[in-house]
Amino acid sequence: MHSTTLGYAAQAAHTPLAPYRFERREPGPHDVQIEIQYCGVCHSDLHTARDEWHNTVYPAVPGHEIIGRVTAVGAHVSKFSIGQTVGVGCMVDSCQACPSCDEGLEQYCENGFTGTYNSEEKETGGITYGGYSSQIVVNENFVLRVPDSLDPAAAAPLLCAGITTYSPLRHWKVGKGQKVGIVGLGGLGHMGVKIAHAMGAEVVLFTTSPDKVDDALRLGADEVVISRDEAQMAPHVGTFDFILNTVAAPHNLDMFLILLKREGTMTLVGAPATPHPSPEVFNLIMKRRHLAGSLIGGIEETQEMLDFCAAHGITSDIEMINIQDINAAYERMLKSDVKYRFVIDMASLKA
Amino acid sequence: MHSTTLGYAAQAAHTPLAPYRFERREPGPHDVQIEIQYCGVCHSDLHTARDEWHNTVYPAVPGHEIIGRVTAVGAHVSKFSIGQTVGVGCMVDSCQACPSCDEGLEQYCENGFTGTYNSEEKETGGITYGGYSSQIVVNENFVLRVPDSLDPAAAAPLLCAGITTYSPLRHWKVGKGQKVGIVGLGGLGHMGVKIAHAMGAEVVLFTTSPDKVDDALRLGADEVVISRDEAQMAPHVGTFDFILNTVAAPHNLDMFLILLKREGTMTLVGAPATPHPSPEVFNLIMKRRHLAGSLIGGIEETQEMLDFCAAHGITSDIEMINIQDINAAYERMLKSDVKYRFVIDMASLKA
Repeated sequence: MHSTTLGYAAQAAHTPLAPYRFERREPGPHDVQIEIQYCGVCHSDLHTARDEWHNTVYPAVPGHEIIGRVTAVGAHVSKFSIGQTVGVGCMVDSCQACPSCDEGLEQYCENGFTGTYNSEEKETGGITYGGYSSQIVVNENFVLRVPDSLDPAAAAPLLCAGITTYSPLRHWKVGKGQKVGIVGLGGLGHMGVKIAHAMGAEVVLFTTSPDKVDDALRLGADEVVISRDEAQMAPHVGTFDFILNTVAAPHNLDMFLILLKREGTMTLVGAPATPHPSPEVFNLIMKRRHLAGSLIGGIEETQEMLDFCAAHGITSDIEMINIQDINAAYERMLKSDVKYRFVIDMASLKA
Repeated sequence: MHSTTLGYAAQAAHTPLAPYRFERREPGPHDVQIEIQYCGVCHSDLHTARDEWHNTVYPAVPGHEIIGRVTAVGAHVSKFSIGQTVGVGCMVDSCQACPSCDEGLEQYCENGFTGTYNSEEKETGGITYGGYSSQIVVNENFVLRVPDSLDPAAAAPLLCAGITTYSPLRHWKVGKGQKVGIVGLGGLGHMGVKIAHAMGAEVVLFTTSPDKVDDALRLGADEVVISRDEAQMAPHVGTFDFILNTVAAPHNLDMFLILLKREGTMTLVGAPATPHPSPEVFNLIMKRRHLAGSLIGGIEETQEMLDFCAAHGITSDIEMINIQDINAAYERMLKSDVKYRFVIDMASLKA
């Protein structure tokens, strides 16, 4: 038993995304079937559609910032019921048996989690297809409750951009009395500013674009520093408890490392396609500083993040598009011409 | 009032060290005067003598692994008395007022500590001269008690090589039940093996030299891995709690980063003259790993290290030389032809 699904897929690295009809599995006893209403557009979608990570299986249906409504539940599903608004993020499964999964850190599953798209689907042996589609079937353990107070379209990017910034801010214990830097004001960075501000930290946003200053202040930054301006950078040397670096393009890490206090950490959440210039070891040694990385967040933590965002009235700043505009949206995303996340209105699929 | 001191100094970057007579300050009320018996030979000595860090003030008298006997104490000195065996390491002063100094982390003094050599000496406005000399005058707050049970010559390298490895092993809480890697078996690495073993950790030594295997096992390693042999490295992927990397020569950090467990840390204690190849950010992100640095250790912690070494019967493996052999020793050090630290017998100065 399968159910026919309409989506948009890339058929090859250099062709535009186009309508694609495929079968989803019928919901098993632990599955939730979700009619997709909104799907955020993440840079990973573009990397995968265009095979920029050299691991894409075609056809590829991207999308891992999914918001929808439950349309069916398996016999043993206890957490969700029909009609409920739910979310699905970057993962739809993991081994659920290793130490990382036991600790609720499915993103670090020792046996590798199942990505929402372009991963092997255990139930069928096929490839997972993501949220640029009319519906999806997901094990209830990987489905999130979306609080009613959140606008569902603007909540979609929380499932990747939100949790990718929330998790490191939480893990490195950001809060009141701390000075926290956010590097880059894109999809991830603008969520980082909002969340770090809501956590009570003093937030400094670093950008190379003077035209983003007003926006960053509006989003919650206490101060905005143009990182190319040495005179603006200098007073901040040695003053930061934590820096979240959301910029995946190769850049000089040392200019930010030296801003950390003794024992401060800069955490990278983007992996550049070509390496950053090698950081100066001296800058780590002289103040016992840390350079670290962080990957999305666990399921329990993603739920915590959604509840935190509801409590603080936080969603993403979005620009809504129709699915027919996805290829143009990719081109604009490449030019950072979006404030700050495209979200696809999936009703447009039926148009 | 000054006191004439005989030492060995570099007069320029490309001339050998040679006898040099200079004046030390008379001990002030808080100073301890020390007749130097032994001085370890650190790679930093050579860097400074040859101006490889481009900051040497000539003449330069190196040496910061000093063991000697107290010959005079100032009127307000309370911690030391004449005849006592004491040590001096890499620092002879710091601001003693900033938050780092308040926490006993003088090595991270926000105003810059005073190095034992090639630093500005606050009391005289001159340049500090190190331990390749007959005597030294040091503020009592920067003098260490050397436990009687330690062989004084073999204890000298504890003052730099010992504390540089002890401090990160302690800071990152190495102990029983942990798997700890030490990269490199030189002056620092051989101390790291001994200390990590004494702390109760399972110790794996990484070396590129098959002829160091037996020695590493003798020093306390539970296992030795030839890091160039992929077949030996592979089983260790994702298994280490902590790795102390003592190799200052530029090398591939990723081959060690991937050996860390989730949230594991690799700490670098050597700064390469030219950068390491840039580490792969993906290796930090995928398991929330850390790359960090560490600089020597604080004074209180150095005392703790000496007491720890006494309790565990740990000293450095040394080769004793006369001061007249220092230039030949530098050449051998450059070829790693020393097991594992040269120590100068300062009695040879009078020869």
